[in-house]
Amino acid sequence: MKDTFNIIILLLGTIFTTCQVAFAQTSDGHKAVLVIHGGAGSITHENLSDDRQQAYAEAMEEALLVGYEIIAGGGASLDAVVAAVMVMEDSPLFNSARGAVLTSTGTVELDASIMDGATLDAGAAAAIKHVRNPISLARAVMEQSDHVLLMGDGAEAFAEEVGLEMVTNEYFRTERRVRQYESYKEQQNEGAEETGDAGVFGEPDYYGTVGAAALDSEGNLAAATSTGGTSFKRWGRVGDSPIIGAGTYADNATCAISATGTGEYFIRGVLAYRISALMQYAGLSLREAASSVVHGTLTELGGDGGVIGLDANGNVTMTFNTEGMFRGYVDGAGNTYVAMFNR
Amino acid sequence: MKDTFNIIILLLGTIFTTCQVAFAQTSDGHKAVLVIHGGAGSITHENLSDDRQQAYAEAMEEALLVGYEIIAGGGASLDAVVAAVMVMEDSPLFNSARGAVLTSTGTVELDASIMDGATLDAGAAAAIKHVRNPISLARAVMEQSDHVLLMGDGAEAFAEEVGLEMVTNEYFRTERRVRQYESYKEQQNEGAEETGDAGVFGEPDYYGTVGAAALDSEGNLAAATSTGGTSFKRWGRVGDSPIIGAGTYADNATCAISATGTGEYFIRGVLAYRISALMQYAGLSLREAASSVVHGTLTELGGDGGVIGLDANGNVTMTFNTEGMFRGYVDGAGNTYVAMFNR
Repeated sequence: MKDTFNIIILLLGTIFTTCQVAFAQTSDGHKAVLVIHGGAGSITHENLSDDRQQAYAEAMEEALLVGYEIIAGGGASLDAVVAAVMVMEDSPLFNSARGAVLTSTGTVELDASIMDGATLDAGAAAAIKHVRNPISLARAVMEQSDHVLLMGDGAEAFAEEVGLEMVTNEYFRTERRVRQYESYKEQQNEGAEETGDAGVFGEPDYYGTVGAAALDSEGNLAAATSTGGTSFKRWGRVGDSPIIGAGTYADNATCAISATGTGEYFIRGVLAYRISALMQYAGLSLREAASSVVHGTLTELGGDGGVIGLDANGNVTMTFNTEGMFRGYVDGAGNTYVAMFNR
Repeated sequence: MKDTFNIIILLLGTIFTTCQVAFAQTSDGHKAVLVIHGGAGSITHENLSDDRQQAYAEAMEEALLVGYEIIAGGGASLDAVVAAVMVMEDSPLFNSARGAVLTSTGTVELDASIMDGATLDAGAAAAIKHVRNPISLARAVMEQSDHVLLMGDGAEAFAEEVGLEMVTNEYFRTERRVRQYESYKEQQNEGAEETGDAGVFGEPDYYGTVGAAALDSEGNLAAATSTGGTSFKRWGRVGDSPIIGAGTYADNATCAISATGTGEYFIRGVLAYRISALMQYAGLSLREAASSVVHGTLTELGGDGGVIGLDANGNVTMTFNTEGMFRGYVDGAGNTYVAMFNR
């Protein structure tokens, strides 16, 4: 009974907060200390059962509250984005760490990046197979190496040196992703065309990546992004998530941004940093810059996806050109808002 | 006798063209169809014998003329930058492909990227060990895959699928680099501190990377970059060279840029694309934008290096904050200019 009641409250909350962004794919005019996303794509009422809607809403609420507690306690935006991203990495719902999509060979390969808006320090890791929380490795690269981007076996050797928690690749592989993979292999054996979309294998087309941007009481911005990349990816493909400027950017002078979508277009357009550049050099607001990049540059290039971001005044943007984006933010009073559909 | 005469002419040419940029680290006001670099760093008269000065000047002349022939024949800027970079990749003088520096384990790992200013298409490859010309792989990624960045074994499997020339890792390892590596290992065994600088091992500190930017008769800009990364690099470190926006950028609306230097700073500042953004959004000229990025952002972050670039009108920049940069350009009449020192 209590469970049913909770479900109703959650669904009402989801419907309510979804309505708040019903008339624009850009959700602005709100103030926040932390904003998150859990991927963009064909996220529609038809594609997502009520149970799964509730599960996503709950997971995003948890990520927001974990990050909020840090900010509210006077903690750093860097700590908040890492904590929020780790909640989503540990959740099997999102395409990052546990629950990530599988590559063409059935393994999990993870990418992540982080940036500190106060110093422009940054760290990233690509093609990670055994670090439980890739975002913690990105942070360690930033803070404990002279480098920004480490990849593959070398990155994992570094992770072990600095004492991060290592897991088997099997830890990341959920039953749902294994079923998707088996379906992919069957269709491949039947001669079906290859595709990077999970959509044809019983899931909505969905660019799963998780990310967060935060603003702390010191006025410092930070952004973080973590992903499993595209389903059944081949050839050591790396998307925008570990690329500073493409998938992640933060600069106290402008904004903190995390992106999700068809990563190749975010790389070519340098879209996360482009939002910062439009604010810094063209005088646009965060809202204007994010809209220009998502509905302008990204759409013109032919790419799909979205961004979440915060400026130094706590103005929030959650902008996408897809049917939906898992997204949410929390304000300075601890009020949370989560949404997933376009309308 | 003829050889001695040629050497004198070449040295005079080098001195003459060096003098042209004696009063500024930014060489502007010239028109070019192709501009190249071969790395920046402590490149001084004291650090470089006359013989080696001549060898670098000859190699750069060759790269410029190979690229010039393509542009002069009505060919594409993309073809010109690839051809010019391949000359330097094949030369043992530069830190790219043959002659690249060795990693901490004594192998060669190569990165490259390319971008087409007409379409914003881009391709890149990282941690390559067996593709003779990494820039040709970057181009194949751009033109023959749906991706922008491939890395490691997967990238090499793709290279084989598309029929690129494969070589043993030994092909890249020159006697000079093996000597450097042996000296590094000896010092390591003697407990010397680790360093990424080749300088302490009998070579000037020098961020070796090669790159080119070109403008063709159709008005299309293109940029390309190729590197062996930092000497004795560990942990799968990747620098800015395969990162679109950091080490390479091209957009017909603004400029084509290739960078060289301490890659981590170019990634954090998104420096190649930042030049484009300053032109597009702040209305700066190529010269002003390159100067702002190299003498402003890069220097303020604490990084060393330089950039070469062209705008859509053929204005050239070769800007660096180090003691020298191997650099040169060729104008529409086939006149070449090469230089390496600051003064």
